[in-house]
Amino acid sequence: MPRDPKHDILFEPIQIGPKTLRNRFWQVPHCIGAGSEKPGAQAGHRAMKAEGGWAVVCTEYCSINPESDDTHRVSARIWDEGDVINLGHLCDECHKWGALVGIEMWYGGAHAPCMETRCVPRGPGSYASEFEYLSYCHEADEDDIRALTNMYVEAAKRAARAGFDIVYVYGAHSYLPLQFLSKFYNKRTDKYGGSLENRARFWIETLEAVRKAVGDSCAVVTRFSIDTLYGSAGIEVHDDGFKFIELVTKEGLTDLWDVNIGDIAEWGEDAAPSRFQKAGHERPWIKEVKKIAKVPVLGVSRATSPDDMAEFIHSGYLDIIGAARPSISDPFLPKKIEEGRVEDIRECIGCNVCISRWEIGGPPLVCTQNATSMEEYRRGWHPEKFDKTEDPCSVLVVGAGPAGMECARILGERGYDVHLREAEAEIGGHISYVQRYPGLAEWGRVITYRQIQLDKLKNVEVHAGVGKMTADDVLTYGADKVVIAVGSHWATDGTASVTHEPIPGADASLPYLCTPEQIMLENKPVGDRVVVIDADGYFTGVSLSELLADQGKKVTIVTQLGGVAPYTHFTLEAPNLHRMMHAKNIHAHTSHWVEEIANGKVTIYNTYRDSYKRTTEPKTGESPHRAGTEVELLECDTVVLVTARIPNAELFTELKARKAEWEKNEIKAIYHIGDCYAPRMIADCIFDGHRLAREFESPDPQHPLPFIRERQIWGRETYPELASA
Amino acid sequence: MPRDPKHDILFEPIQIGPKTLRNRFWQVPHCIGAGSEKPGAQAGHRAMKAEGGWAVVCTEYCSINPESDDTHRVSARIWDEGDVINLGHLCDECHKWGALVGIEMWYGGAHAPCMETRCVPRGPGSYASEFEYLSYCHEADEDDIRALTNMYVEAAKRAARAGFDIVYVYGAHSYLPLQFLSKFYNKRTDKYGGSLENRARFWIETLEAVRKAVGDSCAVVTRFSIDTLYGSAGIEVHDDGFKFIELVTKEGLTDLWDVNIGDIAEWGEDAAPSRFQKAGHERPWIKEVKKIAKVPVLGVSRATSPDDMAEFIHSGYLDIIGAARPSISDPFLPKKIEEGRVEDIRECIGCNVCISRWEIGGPPLVCTQNATSMEEYRRGWHPEKFDKTEDPCSVLVVGAGPAGMECARILGERGYDVHLREAEAEIGGHISYVQRYPGLAEWGRVITYRQIQLDKLKNVEVHAGVGKMTADDVLTYGADKVVIAVGSHWATDGTASVTHEPIPGADASLPYLCTPEQIMLENKPVGDRVVVIDADGYFTGVSLSELLADQGKKVTIVTQLGGVAPYTHFTLEAPNLHRMMHAKNIHAHTSHWVEEIANGKVTIYNTYRDSYKRTTEPKTGESPHRAGTEVELLECDTVVLVTARIPNAELFTELKARKAEWEKNEIKAIYHIGDCYAPRMIADCIFDGHRLAREFESPDPQHPLPFIRERQIWGRETYPELASA
Repeated sequence: MPRDPKHDILFEPIQIGPKTLRNRFWQVPHCIGAGSEKPGAQAGHRAMKAEGGWAVVCTEYCSINPESDDTHRVSARIWDEGDVINLGHLCDECHKWGALVGIEMWYGGAHAPCMETRCVPRGPGSYASEFEYLSYCHEADEDDIRALTNMYVEAAKRAARAGFDIVYVYGAHSYLPLQFLSKFYNKRTDKYGGSLENRARFWIETLEAVRKAVGDSCAVVTRFSIDTLYGSAGIEVHDDGFKFIELVTKEGLTDLWDVNIGDIAEWGEDAAPSRFQKAGHERPWIKEVKKIAKVPVLGVSRATSPDDMAEFIHSGYLDIIGAARPSISDPFLPKKIEEGRVEDIRECIGCNVCISRWEIGGPPLVCTQNATSMEEYRRGWHPEKFDKTEDPCSVLVVGAGPAGMECARILGERGYDVHLREAEAEIGGHISYVQRYPGLAEWGRVITYRQIQLDKLKNVEVHAGVGKMTADDVLTYGADKVVIAVGSHWATDGTASVTHEPIPGADASLPYLCTPEQIMLENKPVGDRVVVIDADGYFTGVSLSELLADQGKKVTIVTQLGGVAPYTHFTLEAPNLHRMMHAKNIHAHTSHWVEEIANGKVTIYNTYRDSYKRTTEPKTGESPHRAGTEVELLECDTVVLVTARIPNAELFTELKARKAEWEKNEIKAIYHIGDCYAPRMIADCIFDGHRLAREFESPDPQHPLPFIRERQIWGRETYPELASA
Repeated sequence: MPRDPKHDILFEPIQIGPKTLRNRFWQVPHCIGAGSEKPGAQAGHRAMKAEGGWAVVCTEYCSINPESDDTHRVSARIWDEGDVINLGHLCDECHKWGALVGIEMWYGGAHAPCMETRCVPRGPGSYASEFEYLSYCHEADEDDIRALTNMYVEAAKRAARAGFDIVYVYGAHSYLPLQFLSKFYNKRTDKYGGSLENRARFWIETLEAVRKAVGDSCAVVTRFSIDTLYGSAGIEVHDDGFKFIELVTKEGLTDLWDVNIGDIAEWGEDAAPSRFQKAGHERPWIKEVKKIAKVPVLGVSRATSPDDMAEFIHSGYLDIIGAARPSISDPFLPKKIEEGRVEDIRECIGCNVCISRWEIGGPPLVCTQNATSMEEYRRGWHPEKFDKTEDPCSVLVVGAGPAGMECARILGERGYDVHLREAEAEIGGHISYVQRYPGLAEWGRVITYRQIQLDKLKNVEVHAGVGKMTADDVLTYGADKVVIAVGSHWATDGTASVTHEPIPGADASLPYLCTPEQIMLENKPVGDRVVVIDADGYFTGVSLSELLADQGKKVTIVTQLGGVAPYTHFTLEAPNLHRMMHAKNIHAHTSHWVEEIANGKVTIYNTYRDSYKRTTEPKTGESPHRAGTEVELLECDTVVLVTARIPNAELFTELKARKAEWEKNEIKAIYHIGDCYAPRMIADCIFDGHRLAREFESPDPQHPLPFIRERQIWGRETYPELASA
């Protein structure tokens, strides 16, 4: 199918300094956990986007010197010739597909804790980071400032040698150039502080020096937070923001503006979760920049709709579509638009689990929508290509939640004869109600993408609304192989990891107790005063709390954890979730757990109530939990139990117990995946279904095959046959 | 000097199954951040202890299968032949020094989040981890249980092939074997659940299978939490603890008991910080085991006194001195006892910053006392050997805090003519008062160790009580080179990273405001109701709060952070600090900051008071902080400012400004180190002084030399000349 002409503008080449982009799709720098230490994973992930049609792909933030070491987080690094080789591999692999490659040169100032190198970063003053509370930078004198500029220059030279086409001087997210520019950090009284011209001097000098160093071999671009959202204490678009752009423009020092908003301590204002912002939320700022800039303007918007993207450019908001998360969710987004296959775009849901892994520090990125993310090299997975099976047997997939839908989709792509059967009227599993939590509507794309793809696969039949299958149903269905993916449910008795026992008095069959499903699927009545008991720590407890508060109820959260929904810190949802709780009067008892529930009241205790010198000698038979002491009563009408997820394991267990009957029913194998195997995040369930389908002919498909582990082998070359798990 | 005969018992060989230990010093498994991916660092660190006289050195916890992946934390792994090579290097390097090498075979069950491998761990039931709140294990059926046992067997075979002498089946810290054993987790009703015999079955079968697999090539030992400190809900010494030991003893299945207490969620009850426990705090439990065990018993005790160690063995508490932290602080502890150099032992201070880096996930271990930890391979540092300088010039070190003391010590060891000058009457810098915070007395060992070593160095003169040196004093002192190490002080105006500005009304010259120094060094009066403003997040704010509460004052902490003293979570101090706060009635306003201070009151606000949908359009000139709205008043008599540390930078700044005068005063160079360069943790200041002294002849000693970075280089062998920063 040909491309829709209204999208033509997205495929017009554009000039960036000495380089020409083949179209308007630019994968902005984003973290993946590979850095420069895992060159295969790094190149595999980025080159997939080059193949998918992106004009430009970039590294994540790339440290220019050991003084800027973000360990425990994983950045790329261009410190030495080893890094030149490893990042050079990335450049080579992307160039093969006709993409340009950018490097985001990063120096963190106080925000870089330097836990690996043990160096000390320099900055415009001596201050602690508001992001890394124990990290201070050293106040640079003029010799230090020259040294810092020279670090960018030397890094840029190495980058050019590695084959990069575009070098960024990275000043967004409150990193070094912005620390000089912003009054929030810069209190100097010399020629690098005071007036805007003085505060801009470091950035300007660095851009000049980098440009001189790379000449025409690279485009020189800058990434700038046009508004740090501190009001007049920091950068504002119509004040220092515009003035800085004018200064740089006058000197012709950047070939492009990559513009965003916010800082690093709350960078969820930039990489905004869909819970709080729709696609394009930075447009009001970016269009201001476009009015005065003399070079192309790039902005991110988490846009996944080509109509929106074309409209952004037509309307003069920006010139180039920057994307991080949409490029992870679908590396082939440009190609699909180009080929007129818009309905095949696997749209980002804005859940930010990708970001969560960087924030945690260390693990490879995962994506809820795209199970092949970061598996391109180590498992050899391509998001759009599938090995056809040589044995297209029939497969029954029981349950069309995230794991079942994805497994059926991939088995279908691979040529199996698939029946996907779902008890409920619609496919989607628990996403069908999760998408009704406040702000989570876009999470429904997990279903819609798969619905569309399943509809296209002639060899996949989807049977929804068929009711629960029994073991007998499965055994006599007539399938060669079976995949059980029947999900999990919330505990009805308050069982949680805190005590690994039920909560006394908790029983969701009683009228004053509810599970999430009872509220979302069964409309069980909820009273005016609600206590939500949340041992889970992710989105369910806080989402239900907001939903009930929006209904006018007075909600109190009790959690054993040190904060409400701590995983949302990693997804960048936490600050605005806390603001929401403040605005909606949702109170929390953190580090508390429940001793007992009765009609009308919940008895809670501080988990730190017992003596702080616990371990002086054995106290046999004495519980450290002194039941009944120092408790607090919460009066309420309804208690919501968000305590533990229980796998729906009965079906598989019965089927396995009746293994003797498989043969006579001509069943060769039965597997179980997703939450019914073990409850986990949506991304991991989708991965599980995907993986099983990819490895369906392996000797033991229930358990993953080894993957390539990138590491040094002592005294050896890195033999691929050794480097696998 | 010969060894003291009363320590002879520590050097008696002892038999462990088929292996003979040369003495009673056993480095128990502990994390270092190297795992099996950084073989040089791993071998370098452990072999230093082999050289230092330890009879046994062990890996950290070593995963036996990708299903047990602790990423984001760093464990060792023995998954494949690459790991066999890398860990084999560790064995080879340790064997050269006559030590035996142990591997701690680890499978985490629900506690393993598997963020790298994306596998799912199995366990005795389906439950979430109380340590990793979003990680669930899959309930193993009998096939799974056989598979799990087989993972230990295959790992043990690989371990034997790598050259390990001792294989651990690791069941302490609530990992898999203990999850089967303990009623806290195990609710099974089959032959692996219910009675003690049934719950012990997995562990027993695994020990049997491992023993059969390795034969006499390795000793088989087990590590067991004899009391999980849950009272009767878990393991107790006189109940399941004893019964399990009897069962294993009857079958002769372990060659040694490595015994400890506690679980993983609060493993600070085992690796107890000195703040809460003295050395040997687990003895009351271990001696119980010794009464019934038929094989040698090993226990940790963080003992650093050889008299105590000998007494532990003589008294029948245990047979072998297990040590993790003391072996990090001083790898040569056994050798120093053997050589009668007890006063040279660099004693562990129990601050647990070593552990903090594992908890953070990723960075290499650091040690406050031993700056060479984890630098053995990558920087080539030996804790007891120093390159003699070829140019023994005179060096003036100004300031005898942690950085200055350490720098003078290493310069002295290297043969320089050193004058260490301290303004105050005693050396030690801020440690002189930090050691007076409740529970931190052992931190004073930072001073005492260095005092003793400096006294021994004939070429180092220590001049204490000489008052502050001016720039004139330094310039005319007559030294060839100068090192400025004059520390930092707490801000007197409330400046903190929250706003990077002073707090209105904060002025420590007023009678109702105090800095930590004013309280600890100047005895400034503190009233009955105290507000401690803590933006620091580590030990100072909470320690001062406890000290003042112990004086009968009512203390309230205000912090912008999400919890009080969050860094103490990583040092394992947090749970008991929270218990202390609960017991001593110290309240906290977390996620709050200060709008204004006046005599008798502090105005605070919730940092989340502003709208939760902040970024819809530019709001020029409007601060998101709506001053004066939604504030809370705290009434108090005294406000303590723990907001930011300000480097004492004036001396170096003046000296640098007067660089023209250096030559005529025959000064070749002036450096600055420690907190006066940039405030940081004590460990990093000591490192800084140590590093400068090690690299004193480098082209630019102020900044670190490159070090070896262990990583894969794409398509190449790992050329050492590439692998450096």
